[in-house]
Amino acid sequence: MAFKFILDEPDLLKDCVIASSSLLNEAVLTVDSNGVSLVSMDSANVALVEFNILAGAFRELEASEKTEFGVNMSDLVSVMRRVKSTETLEMSMDDGMLSIKISGNAKRAFQIPLIDVKKETKIPQLEFPASIEIKTEFLEDGISDAEIISDAVIFEADPDSFKIRSRGDNRTAELQMQKGEDGIVSLEAKDHVKSTFSLDYLKKMIKASKISDVASIKIGNDYPLRMTFTVLDKAHIGFVLAPRIEND
Amino acid sequence: MAFKFILDEPDLLKDCVIASSSLLNEAVLTVDSNGVSLVSMDSANVALVEFNILAGAFRELEASEKTEFGVNMSDLVSVMRRVKSTETLEMSMDDGMLSIKISGNAKRAFQIPLIDVKKETKIPQLEFPASIEIKTEFLEDGISDAEIISDAVIFEADPDSFKIRSRGDNRTAELQMQKGEDGIVSLEAKDHVKSTFSLDYLKKMIKASKISDVASIKIGNDYPLRMTFTVLDKAHIGFVLAPRIEND
Amino acid sequence: MAFKFILDEPDLLKDCVIASSSLLNEAVLTVDSNGVSLVSMDSANVALVEFNILAGAFRELEASEKTEFGVNMSDLVSVMRRVKSTETLEMSMDDGMLSIKISGNAKRAFQIPLIDVKKETKIPQLEFPASIEIKTEFLEDGISDAEIISDAVIFEADPDSFKIRSRGDNRTAELQMQKGEDGIVSLEAKDHVKSTFSLDYLKKMIKASKISDVASIKIGNDYPLRMTFTVLDKAHIGFVLAPRIEND
Repeated sequence: MAFKFILDEPDLLKDCVIASSSLLNEAVLTVDSNGVSLVSMDSANVALVEFNILAGAFRELEASEKTEFGVNMSDLVSVMRRVKSTETLEMSMDDGMLSIKISGNAKRAFQIPLIDVKKETKIPQLEFPASIEIKTEFLEDGISDAEIISDAVIFEADPDSFKIRSRGDNRTAELQMQKGEDGIVSLEAKDHVKSTFSLDYLKKMIKASKISDVASIKIGNDYPLRMTFTVLDKAHIGFVLAPRIEND
Repeated sequence: MAFKFILDEPDLLKDCVIASSSLLNEAVLTVDSNGVSLVSMDSANVALVEFNILAGAFRELEASEKTEFGVNMSDLVSVMRRVKSTETLEMSMDDGMLSIKISGNAKRAFQIPLIDVKKETKIPQLEFPASIEIKTEFLEDGISDAEIISDAVIFEADPDSFKIRSRGDNRTAELQMQKGEDGIVSLEAKDHVKSTFSLDYLKKMIKASKISDVASIKIGNDYPLRMTFTVLDKAHIGFVLAPRIEND
Repeated sequence: MAFKFILDEPDLLKDCVIASSSLLNEAVLTVDSNGVSLVSMDSANVALVEFNILAGAFRELEASEKTEFGVNMSDLVSVMRRVKSTETLEMSMDDGMLSIKISGNAKRAFQIPLIDVKKETKIPQLEFPASIEIKTEFLEDGISDAEIISDAVIFEADPDSFKIRSRGDNRTAELQMQKGEDGIVSLEAKDHVKSTFSLDYLKKMIKASKISDVASIKIGNDYPLRMTFTVLDKAHIGFVLAPRIEND
């Protein structure tokens, strides 16, 4: 057996898999002694998704060597959706299949096929002039507000404030938060920076807010966005999203 | 600035706008020292919608002169749906746009365009031989019951009872309430009166039941219906619906 | 009047009618001094549905002689959905129509037409080598698990365990319960038996789990399934489902 792991909090993996699946059709998962991880670009090459369930989150993690395997994300999601929060999840590789066992009052088992996925993806090295930690409910509000106006949204920061804006066809929406206000956990920005992103991608990315009440956002000027949701010592899921270059 | 108002109970305006929007594509709103009001016919000229948020409902109401402006109802509804009950709503006119500000933990702002709407509508003078105040849950039951039978519904009153009936294709439904019963707050009828109405319109009108537990209904014989929902000293929304002339 | 009955727990009849209606377009109901019953095959002749509301469940049951009448199930369901749990349901035959009266705070009445339904259906005499009583939540889990894999599901029992399995296109799902485990109320099986059934039918049948937390399942080898849900001394609803003959 290439690996076997047991999770008592299956939602960590479930929520990361479900949030990833809205951007990815297939993906490579890696299991090693550090935990379970995924790094993959969406098929349009606009967004990178990566998550990591850390070794400390597992009741049991047997992975003497590193194993990489490809799966169809819709296969994996359909099984993960069948796991309840209170159940225990066991995953292993078995006869060239991915074996998923769920233990609650009943014992349930699933097998799904492995697939060949060739692409290797690296998380790009980026430097961001602005970093914001924001309560996810405000991030969700800003993105939902923008949705009624346009299919693009502008993230904008300066040393004192963070804004989510959109404009289109004689209509505008803007959410503004000042440093020190309740929804802003931290804000560091050297200058005024601003980038425009696809609303459709952002809506998929913020599904990951299920795992954390706070989102970390890093932006620049007409530069990619990095958005990360973290469960301390247990898991994180992050995204890198290419900007739209637009005149605003 | 032509006007500015601040509402601490945004649901008053939100619920009236949403209920109106199911019948109206566009409308003229009027702001003056008496509050905010709307009077408009639906595009088929079958129903009149009017609402009024009274001056006493506002934390602040600056309107030295009367201002009338047209809006696309779907624009206005999409913004109003973004307001939470606990937030404060500010509305003003700004650079020929309608400016809507929402203050909760974050500050959010929207601008939507004004449009030209020419029609002026007056509430018709009508005299009704029968008036009923009914708890909205019973009204909703009667209308939902009728829905499984027909696309028309008969409202019928006599000095002692109020009925909501429908018949079609060998099937009937009837809700009957006696004067003095729990669901009837008041009932005044000189004679037996009966009129038939479009179920489709009634279903849209009773969406306004969100603002009040009691509906005021006035009917006659093959005569229009007047249905009103009131929040004492703060707001009301009312409808006048033309009857269907049918053999029953 | 051929019969009249009054039910203070309308959900007994409502839930049986709704569960039946997902398999039946029309049906014959029988009212006699034993209660109200239905026995009918679905139009594809794959499943038999039968339910019985026992005399003890009624506040009043007037049926000096046996009355049989046909109804369109969608007519009956649309009226039954309008009954609330706390209301009282009265049913009688009136002028060749089925009359349904609902009493809560308002009095509501419906009439729907009777129809001619010729077929008489008998519950087949079957002998089953395996009987399982299982908590419905586990049955629902097993069926929902199977749904992500295939359109068929295998029920399998041996003296010590009960399994719900499915397999298809390189994927498998299996729920397994051991005799004595929490979800298994009882298990009697002489041998290992196994039959395959249509998932689509099973999904419709388990809607009847609303009336009981425990399902009785009887199976054999490539043999029909009998599934029953019972409210002690008041009602039961049961199904007989033909097996799919497949190589597994």
